[in-house]
Parts: sequence; C-alpha cells; structure tokens
Amino acid sequence: MAQATFEEISASDFFYRNRDIAGLTNPSRSIFVAIREVVENSLDAAESQRIPPDIYVRLSFEAEATPDTQIYKLRVEDNGSGIPPRFIPSAFGQVLYGSKYKLKQARGTFGLGGKMAVLYGQITTHQPVFVTSSTGQEKIYSFKLMIDIQRNKPIILDRKVIINKENWRGTIIEFTLEGDYLRAMPKIIEYFKQTAMVNPYANLTFVDPKGRLYKFIRATTTMPEPPKETMPHPYGVDVELLQRLVQITEYSNMADFLKGHFHRVGEITAQKFLEFASINPSKNPKKLNHEEIVRLMQNLKKYKDFLPPDASCLSPLGEELLKAGVAKELNPEYLVVHQRKPSTYAGHPFIVEMAMAYGGNIPKRNNFVIYRFANKIPLLYDEASDVSYRVISAMNWRRYKVSPDMPIAIVVHICSTKVPYKTVGKEFISDRPEVRREVANALREVARQLQHFLTRQEHVHMEKKRLGIFSKYLPKIAQFSTTLAGKDRVPDIDKLLKSVQKYGAEES
Amino acid sequence: MAQATFEEISASDFFYRNRDIAGLTNPSRSIFVAIREVVENSLDAAESQRIPPDIYVRLSFEAEATPDTQIYKLRVEDNGSGIPPRFIPSAFGQVLYGSKYKLKQARGTFGLGGKMAVLYGQITTHQPVFVTSSTGQEKIYSFKLMIDIQRNKPIILDRKVIINKENWRGTIIEFTLEGDYLRAMPKIIEYFKQTAMVNPYANLTFVDPKGRLYKFIRATTTMPEPPKETMPHPYGVDVELLQRLVQITEYSNMADFLKGHFHRVGEITAQKFLEFASINPSKNPKKLNHEEIVRLMQNLKKYKDFLPPDASCLSPLGEELLKAGVAKELNPEYLVVHQRKPSTYAGHPFIVEMAMAYGGNIPKRNNFVIYRFANKIPLLYDEASDVSYRVISAMNWRRYKVSPDMPIAIVVHICSTKVPYKTVGKEFISDRPEVRREVANALREVARQLQHFLTRQEHVHMEKKRLGIFSKYLPKIAQFSTTLAGKDRVPDIDKLLKSVQKYGAEES
Repeated sequence: MAQATFEEISASDFFYRNRDIAGLTNPSRSIFVAIREVVENSLDAAESQRIPPDIYVRLSFEAEATPDTQIYKLRVEDNGSGIPPRFIPSAFGQVLYGSKYKLKQARGTFGLGGKMAVLYGQITTHQPVFVTSSTGQEKIYSFKLMIDIQRNKPIILDRKVIINKENWRGTIIEFTLEGDYLRAMPKIIEYFKQTAMVNPYANLTFVDPKGRLYKFIRATTTMPEPPKETMPHPYGVDVELLQRLVQITEYSNMADFLKGHFHRVGEITAQKFLEFASINPSKNPKKLNHEEIVRLMQNLKKYKDFLPPDASCLSPLGEELLKAGVAKELNPEYLVVHQRKPSTYAGHPFIVEMAMAYGGNIPKRNNFVIYRFANKIPLLYDEASDVSYRVISAMNWRRYKVSPDMPIAIVVHICSTKVPYKTVGKEFISDRPEVRREVANALREVARQLQHFLTRQEHVHMEKKRLGIFSKYLPKIAQFSTTLAGKDRVPDIDKLLKSVQKYGAEES
Repeated sequence: MAQATFEEISASDFFYRNRDIAGLTNPSRSIFVAIREVVENSLDAAESQRIPPDIYVRLSFEAEATPDTQIYKLRVEDNGSGIPPRFIPSAFGQVLYGSKYKLKQARGTFGLGGKMAVLYGQITTHQPVFVTSSTGQEKIYSFKLMIDIQRNKPIILDRKVIINKENWRGTIIEFTLEGDYLRAMPKIIEYFKQTAMVNPYANLTFVDPKGRLYKFIRATTTMPEPPKETMPHPYGVDVELLQRLVQITEYSNMADFLKGHFHRVGEITAQKFLEFASINPSKNPKKLNHEEIVRLMQNLKKYKDFLPPDASCLSPLGEELLKAGVAKELNPEYLVVHQRKPSTYAGHPFIVEMAMAYGGNIPKRNNFVIYRFANKIPLLYDEASDVSYRVISAMNWRRYKVSPDMPIAIVVHICSTKVPYKTVGKEFISDRPEVRREVANALREVARQLQHFLTRQEHVHMEKKRLGIFSKYLPKIAQFSTTLAGKDRVPDIDKLLKSVQKYGAEES
C-alpha cells in the first residue's frame, strides 16, 4: 500500500483549515467574532496610550451571497496608538505576528484574532483589506493588503502616503466578509452593551446594516492605570524559558541572573534561593548544562519563599469604575462591588473583581443573570463551561438568604497576564483551582453584603408595618383616653411613636 | 508613551505559549494527552496499512520533580506503516508538518498532537526524543531529536542505521515528561478501555509506572475498510480553495476543471451546474478573475443538485464491529446498534453510529452512561459541552418508557473527514445542526428498539407470573374436580397451560 506523504503547512494555512477553533464556525458566529476582534484591538490600542477610546464601527450591506448569508463591509475606526507603517502589512497579513506576545494584560492574547477576521473576509469574499493608520506624526499611511495563506505573508496591493494636517492618530480598518447579521444581531448588541459596562471610559458607536445607530457614551474619562510589562515569575517558569534566558542573558553570575530576569526576586531572595538549591551564586548561567537547567526549574517551583507577583502588570477596573459601569447599564436598587487581592496560578498573576446588583433593570428569571468578563472582554458563549458559572451553581445560596429567582445580576471580571481560556475563540475560562477559589471568595463577600441589605430591607419593612399600626391606633387610643379621663389636651403621641422606633426616621 | 513593538513567533512557539488549547493544562491532564496522542498516531499508522494494530505502551517512573509531580519515561511501540527516514526529524520536531493534511478520515486532524506531546516533554524535562522506525525495508533508522521551538525546526542530535534482519515494520517513540500519573490514572485506564471498545481489532498493552499490566486483546482481526483520500465537495468550497485549484489545475476548460477537482461531479452534473451559473464550459479556469471566482464559490453553494458526498473517505466501524466491541467491554443483557447513512455538514461527509446497551456490567446511576467517540477516539473530557450529551439530555425519554436511572449505556461514534471539534485538545464536538439531527435520529432508532425489548421483557415477566398462578392452581382444581366427579384420571393440565400461554415456551 502507498506510504504516507508528508507536507508542511504555514501557520496561516493551519488556522484557515481549522477556523472552528478560533470561533469562526458559521456565518452568524463569524460576523460576531470579526467585529469583536477588531474592536478589542482598537480598545487595546487606545488604552496603551491612556487615551479614552473613541471607537466607531460600521457594518454595511454589500450584496446577497447565498440564501442565508450576505456580504457585508466592516469598517472600524479608532483613536488609538496607530501602527508604524513598516509593521502594518504583517500586523494584518501574517498570522503569529503581533504586539501581544508580552507579559502584560491585554484583551488580545493570541495575536490572532484580527488576522483571523481579515483572513475570514478574504476566503469568503476574496477582497483585500484596507488599513489606514497614523501614530500622530506628519504622515498617514494607507495600505491595500491581501494574505498569501499558503506562505503566511502579506501581499501589498497598494500603498499611499498623505500629509497628516490635523495630527490625526489612530487606525481605520475596512474589509468585506460573508455573514448572517440578522442571526448575529442580538449577540453583537449585547457585546457592545457589556463592553460599555466594563469600559465606562470608552465611547462606542455602532451603525448596523439597516442604518440603526447604537451609541454608548462614556460615563467617565478616568481610566485605570495601564498595565506594565513584567518579567516572568519563578513559579511559572519552564525549561524552554530558562534556556532562552540563558542564551540572551548579559549577567555572568547566578545571583544577578535571578535578580535581573525574574519578577520580585531581589538580592536577599536570590541568595536564599541559591542556598536552597545548592547553586554557587557566582556560577556563570551560560555554563549551566541540560541537567542543571532542569534542576533549576524544579527548584524554582519547589522553593516556598518567593514573593507573590505584584499587580503592576495587571490593569483591573477598580471598584469605582466597575460600580460606575454596572450602575450605568443596570441601574440597580442595590449594588455591591468587591476586588480581590492579586493572586497567582502557575506563576501568572490575576485579580478577580465582582459586582452583585439587585433590582432596577435586572429581570426576574429562574436564574441569576451572569455577566462574565476577562481582561475587560465580555464572554458571551458557552456559559455553562465557564469557571464562574460553576462556582455560582455550586454555591449554597440559602445560607445567604438569596434565591436564584430574585432579580440579581452577578458580574465577574477576571484579569490576568494570561487568562486561562480554553479555546482560541475566547469563549470561556478553564477551571483552575486557584481561579476557582478566588471567584468563590469574591462571591461569598458580595453575597454577604447583599444578605445584609436584604435583611435590613426586611427589617425596615417590618418596622414600617409596626409603626404603621402604632400610628394608626395610638391617636385613637389617646383620643379615647383623653375623653374618658375628661381632659381636653390629647397627649403628645409623636414622642411615644419615636420611642418605639428602631431605626432613624430618615430610614423608615 | 512607548509605541507597541511587533515581533514574529514560530508556530512551535505559539503552541508552546498556548499549550492550554491543546489540552496540556496541568501535569495530570498532560500525561493523559501525551499518551493518547502517541497511541492515536500508532493506530492510524497501522490502520493505513490495514494491519490489525499491536500497540505497546510503557510509562515508567524516572525521578521526583516537584512535591506533586514526577518525571516519567513514555515508550510507545507499534506495528504500523513506519516513517521513511527523511521525514522522521520533521514529523516529530516541527509543528504543522505531517501526513494528516488530507481529505480522509483519521484520528489525528490537526497534525499537532504527537509534536505537542514531544514539545511538552522537552519543556518539562529538557531531554531529547528517541524515534526508531522502519517501513519494513532493509534498514531501521534511529534518531535522537530535540525541537528548536523558536525556529520551529528539528535538531538532530544523533542518527543511527541498522540492518533490518527480521523485516520489522513499525515505529518506536520514547521520551520523558513531567506529570502526575496518580491523578491521571483513572482517565488513562478508561481511555484504553474505551479505545479497545471501538477498535476491537487492536491489541493494546499498557504497563504503568507501578509495573501493573493492562492488556486489551483483540476480539477480531476483521478491520473496517480503510478510508480513501477524496476531493473536496462543492458545498464545502471557499474562495481560497478555488484559488489554489486554479493555480495548480492542468485542465484548460471549466467542465474538466469541475469534474477533475470536485467530489461526485461528473459530466452531466458539471454541464448542468455551468448552465445554472451561466459559465461557458470551455472557459479556461486560469482566466477566472477575482469576481468570477467569488461568484463561482457562491454558485457552488447555491446549486441544489450536487450529489451528496459518498462515504468512501470515511471508515466507520460498522454495526458488527461496534456490536463486538461493546459486547466485549460491557457484556450487556440487551444490545442494539444502528448506523446512519452518510450525511454532510459544510461539505464534509460524516456518519453517526450508535449503540444502546442495557444491563450486564452497566451500573445503575442517576444518569445514562455515555461513551463518546469521534473517528474511533474516545472523548473523555467536557461531556456536558458535547453535542451528543445535549441531544441525549433534550430527548423525551418517557416516550420510550426509558428512564435515566436504568442501567443503560449509550455509545455514540461520529466519523468524518473533519470532526467539528471545538478545541485542539479534541475534548468535545460542537453543536452543528446537521450533526445534531443525525445523532437525534440514531438515538430515536435505538431507543425505539430498546423500548420493544423492555416492553417484551415486561410482557414476558407478566406472562410468567400469570402462568405461575395457573400452574399453581390448575392441578389443585383438576384434582378436586376429578374427585368431585368420582373419576380416577386427572385430565391433562399441560395442554390447558399451553393453550393460555402467549409466548413460545423457549422464551418464558
């Protein structure tokens, strides 16, 4: 029988063949994913410069494609950092090329989404993508690009330079794609709504194919501290990484090597660790052999006294901004927010933020309304597989006198330098024990506070009822007693009423 | 503020950074994934030659790594096709290089798993992989390899050639990796058990780190027809594919182009389609411009009269083999199997096979025991996200007088040239409407048959009871009547009993 034949395919080709794993499963889902990926790149580009994002998205009808699908043109404009011209072709036309391969929090993590959207547009409509960008300098650059999928290289079809008279800064991307907007619409609108919730400092405008305008105006211009790039934490290290560090290091002894390449390792920690691992502090890291590198990795994981990662590489929303965002979109009767301290899984720092809202615009259903976010991205698919859903389901709610049929919304935001997504499509977060524990703790905290509110509300309600009875009958009794005693002046009932009141008058 | 810096990473580097998406999430899961990927490559290699697979897997303890993990050596030997020596280094040391990028059914679909296992071994233990292989010719080749992850290239550390005196054919792969076998054990044993169930023609041997031997002996040497490589079906075509075909085609007119490159397009279909699409049959495909290619793609999808794909590129198990496999492992009281006709989603052919087993070794639980398989691979994780689980949960079981607390096992096997996995880790199948429908239809069919069995069983049971009563009292009545009538001979009751019997004696 014939022998197997072997061949090599490019990264572009791999994702072209397996676009399901990036979420591009069908015409409805694909149009959602395309919009989301481009918008998230825009948000990252503005935030990196600490500019409140202004993002304009237009989806317009171009032609009928098949009985169920249409060709649309997607245009996204932002006021972000802009892209230097020499990077533009590869940034949009080469898979596994990008600015996201850094140890800091970003919406994009795979450096794949924007390109996959463009690639999807190309394979469904065979039209080029137009990219216009300026970093705010003298010139604006425009490119007309396609992707050579088999070679994973951009093809530059046209390139224009114009003078940037108004010092415009930002990026405009425009391409066509096949999709099913009618079916995707609810998710897309929900996506914008939830994005507005956790990015309350952003202006988002969406014009849909029918010309309907959806506008989400920022509630604040305060922005969270942007994340800083960080070094790897000793607990998250593997042999490959050590190998790479040994190759590039300029340090000539192990003490400096540890201090210079690892997060939160200072002089004393380095000395103590080297003693623990029986490594000579003056040893040259370049001289480490295979076995020594493996042992170093194992010892880094075993050593108990490394400091936990600090959160400077993270950019959580903060309790104030989260409160503002949720209040703006849900307008609840009661709202509690809670931010956990930074924690870590496999050496990656992460922070859980949680909000619990009651009443207002929240509908009563058979279950809680759950909003899931990761690095300020709303997660809208596969809820039941997500760690937050599992924690919420496993919770003993009766303890908190809370039941799922109350009008309660739970907002979970997990931010990390590396969100443990289960799929490239960023639908849900995997069930890491450390993440699970933090989500559960945050949930207990907000549940406790909601319980206080509900208990207090019940007391106030009872009290109102009790006072109501007093204030109904006391005057009558007083009147009757006065008449009975043959007196003229009815005694002061207000004093009496106040004496039985349990809460301040302003609360009743 | 600083501008973003851009960089390119290799495919190897991408998967190294994002190994979660290939299922390598933690030390327990990773050891499971590593074994599974290597075993599946071995099964594919034997089946491609239509040789009943003989696979020997040994996992041995090497050293303690961290408090929770150990270093293991994994060795897998097979009697498969063997790999020609020039392909060996890249087949094990280069991501996105392989023999799986074909339009036919195979266990491997991403051409990624085996390499990811080797890569994982390297980054956790920094040891090379040893590969020995022969295609049965005069020589046996041995390689000692590592992966240059940053460049995505194999590094050949050593290469040996020996004479193949005994005409051995197969592949041996051996590498070390860090893992947590104790925690992974139940899943690994379950994996072998279920693999044996849908590969009843395979011998599987597993020796675990404690030296325990698990042996699964083949129940048959009959093998299903191996899948044939096929051409793309017109309904599954996109612009990129058309573009590639136009580039490589040797046909100079559209009629030949369609007949020569598409699955189930013959002379008449080609003519009719070209008429439908208003394309001149003698047009040279190389002369198609962008717009014409896009229109061609859209028309291919619109045209209703293409024949459905045939199943020659698929290799389902078949009802006999499925029955043998399930009977062997579950030994049920009742077993029904059903194979659906080939169907198609997005131009990819697929077949659903289903078995329903009752009683025997199947435990009574609160829910059905579900075995999920895709291209003869057991799927053991994320059951609740799988299309089969959803269909089974949504079914109205009361209609079939079946309840989830009965000892019932449901076996679902989906085979396809392209199984719509949701993750590279091949944990579950996404919810495509066409797949869902086929699973539901197969389920209804086996449920109906089980219902007949259960109803019949109930009748038989009732009948037994009824006959029991008759045979208890009839002799007494006969005796009494005989005495009363003053006769000597008691009448023949057996005749009477038979006359009220509803089912044959052999059944009661």
